[in-house]
Amino acid sequence: MQPLRIGIAGLGTVAQGVLDLLKDNGELIAQRAGRPIQVAAVASRTAKDVDLLGGAFSNDVLGLVSRNDVDVVLELIGGEGIALELVEASLAAGRPVVTANKAILAGYGQRLFAAAHANNTALGIEASVAGGIPIIGSLSSGLAANEIESIAGIINGTCNYILTAMASEGAAFDDALANAQALGYAEADPTFDVGGIDAAHKLTILSALAFGTPLDKEAVHIEGIEDITLQDIKDAEALGYTIKHLGIARRTDKGIEARVHPTLVPQDVLIANVNGVMNAVAVWGNATGNTLYYGPGAGGAATASAVLADVVAIARGQSHLEFDGVVREDRWVPIQDVVSAAYLRIPVVDEPGVFARIATILGDHGISIEGAIQRERAIQNRQVPISVVTQPVLEADMLDAVRALGELPVVVGPVRRLRVDHLDG
Amino acid sequence: MQPLRIGIAGLGTVAQGVLDLLKDNGELIAQRAGRPIQVAAVASRTAKDVDLLGGAFSNDVLGLVSRNDVDVVLELIGGEGIALELVEASLAAGRPVVTANKAILAGYGQRLFAAAHANNTALGIEASVAGGIPIIGSLSSGLAANEIESIAGIINGTCNYILTAMASEGAAFDDALANAQALGYAEADPTFDVGGIDAAHKLTILSALAFGTPLDKEAVHIEGIEDITLQDIKDAEALGYTIKHLGIARRTDKGIEARVHPTLVPQDVLIANVNGVMNAVAVWGNATGNTLYYGPGAGGAATASAVLADVVAIARGQSHLEFDGVVREDRWVPIQDVVSAAYLRIPVVDEPGVFARIATILGDHGISIEGAIQRERAIQNRQVPISVVTQPVLEADMLDAVRALGELPVVVGPVRRLRVDHLDG
Repeated sequence: MQPLRIGIAGLGTVAQGVLDLLKDNGELIAQRAGRPIQVAAVASRTAKDVDLLGGAFSNDVLGLVSRNDVDVVLELIGGEGIALELVEASLAAGRPVVTANKAILAGYGQRLFAAAHANNTALGIEASVAGGIPIIGSLSSGLAANEIESIAGIINGTCNYILTAMASEGAAFDDALANAQALGYAEADPTFDVGGIDAAHKLTILSALAFGTPLDKEAVHIEGIEDITLQDIKDAEALGYTIKHLGIARRTDKGIEARVHPTLVPQDVLIANVNGVMNAVAVWGNATGNTLYYGPGAGGAATASAVLADVVAIARGQSHLEFDGVVREDRWVPIQDVVSAAYLRIPVVDEPGVFARIATILGDHGISIEGAIQRERAIQNRQVPISVVTQPVLEADMLDAVRALGELPVVVGPVRRLRVDHLDG
Repeated sequence: MQPLRIGIAGLGTVAQGVLDLLKDNGELIAQRAGRPIQVAAVASRTAKDVDLLGGAFSNDVLGLVSRNDVDVVLELIGGEGIALELVEASLAAGRPVVTANKAILAGYGQRLFAAAHANNTALGIEASVAGGIPIIGSLSSGLAANEIESIAGIINGTCNYILTAMASEGAAFDDALANAQALGYAEADPTFDVGGIDAAHKLTILSALAFGTPLDKEAVHIEGIEDITLQDIKDAEALGYTIKHLGIARRTDKGIEARVHPTLVPQDVLIANVNGVMNAVAVWGNATGNTLYYGPGAGGAATASAVLADVVAIARGQSHLEFDGVVREDRWVPIQDVVSAAYLRIPVVDEPGVFARIATILGDHGISIEGAIQRERAIQNRQVPISVVTQPVLEADMLDAVRALGELPVVVGPVRRLRVDHLDG
């Protein structure tokens, strides 16, 4: 059969992963795809001493679109700018695109899928979320018969590496981050990862597939892990929880909640045991109930695996626009309307009746205490932290309660609030 | 667009799940499939008071093949006999089939896929393994660019329920089984599940997809969980392991190992934390490394989700023969040539020098002790069990060593041997 000829844009880690994988597994991939995958061209601003498997090298990235020996364009440059331009030009020319670029999908995906539809071509995005885990295919095909109820995922390996190091080695945030940077798990400027932006992009894509929400990254509420302390992690552990940075998207009567933030999850749920740079996405469907997908979220080989899965689907004539572009739900729940359980650490003066006053304030705001309460000995100046896990409560009410607690004379420092999720659907 | 018209054979749990799911999620499924899924006919030996969504009822199961208002046949009868006959007749007529029937796939799959190929039609098998988990699609599409190195899965919910109950509640095997039967998680005759036969059928299918081995259930080495005792579970726990009933298929230089048996796995690997009736399949690819897929392995709604995933793929024109029928590897490793670590519990007389004699026997058979050794106080008649975890060793050598140990005068009862797997690829 005719080979499928690919044009690769970019020569970074993922592009090199694709070339390596084609070199190592090319024969097997050809068998599974029903025809050989041939590298026709590679375009990158800078040449590198890499085996291009016979592909013609060029510095002209956009030139891939006009080559008539390229059947599919692999956009593996990343970021916006030329990457976005290339994807748009390819789709406009009716040429299938496979991309690992979550930033352009979360920012411009609506427009890109519309272009793919209008030009009756494919836009493969398996590599854009959670690297080697086939979560895009699982959501769009494997779970296609399900109304999705919620998604909760560890979708940023850098955050998970840092939180795991803090929990298992007692490392401080700064040390864990420095170590992640030394190992290549975090960028020199780590804001994009530890600030939760990368996870928000991925959650935007997952939410579109799951709920038919528009690809609008601005709709996601974002909190990073920068201010998580060892104290938080130890307290969580003592209460039976682990702190994970989760992307959560959930269907409610009011619309779709989409938020990324550090979350206390029970130690015995599977996702609490996903450690290091590994990713995992839990999905609740109305037919399947809870399912979970685990694997490496980044790295050249794992991401290349996802890129080539899309290429194989195109070679088989099996490709499908995972996101059909139809907006089925455009009601986003603003963060103040989100209902979530909380962990509160309240530094108080150690004197009789203090807990009653705390409980009264919470009760006045309609907040029930779940019962997980821990009281430690005063450590200095007769201060002692009271730790409380609450029942689910409206964000706005929780913020009011935290404010009111802070005004109590017996409360002698800032009240720490973290969200808790029992991940029961 | 034209609806896709399905004919459902059978009216058991899975068929009813399909009807329920089409009723509940029909509109959403139509959107995702690009066209409505219409129940044209339902055939079953016995009628039931179930909403057939307008489908014509008949007692003539094979009659589905000759109906010209049926585009796809859903074989949801199970077992061999009429189910096999229906699938063969449908494929011969060039009509796509979706089946949840692991028994006919593991027994006759080679012939069935050949028929599907010859008649250029589809044979959807997502529902045949691990219920609601899209493991078939993940292996055949999501991981298509990977050389698969190994698979290890909890693929029988009955076994996992019983082992979980024994570990968490201290229930004896018989009590846990009786409880599983009362809850509908085990059949009146549980042999098929607890004896490992069901898991072997599923492993046969997974191995074919992963390695291109022939669909030959006879190649799988089968051990059930009938003789697992509370003592085994407690000893495993004390040594840092959990006992799970796993299906393991692994590529080695000598060919493919395929075996189902109780296995000690380290407590901190993800699959050790998969409990109750839930299933999970870990897959190691040469690009992705370790990935894992978790979810409900049985039940009407979950299995229906998988059946309808295949129907949606067919409606989209996206279906693909997951197993292409090409045998890429037909060397099965017989069990005596399998290399596996082991747990040994050796009842000995409590006297000086006993451990040295045990270690000598093991050493004579080329078996290294990994170091996890536990020695308890003598409980009666000066007997005490010595527990050992070994390095990986050839099955034949291990059996020789166990025999030799049994002949030592200081060994006062049968030596217990269970396999250990660290699940590191």
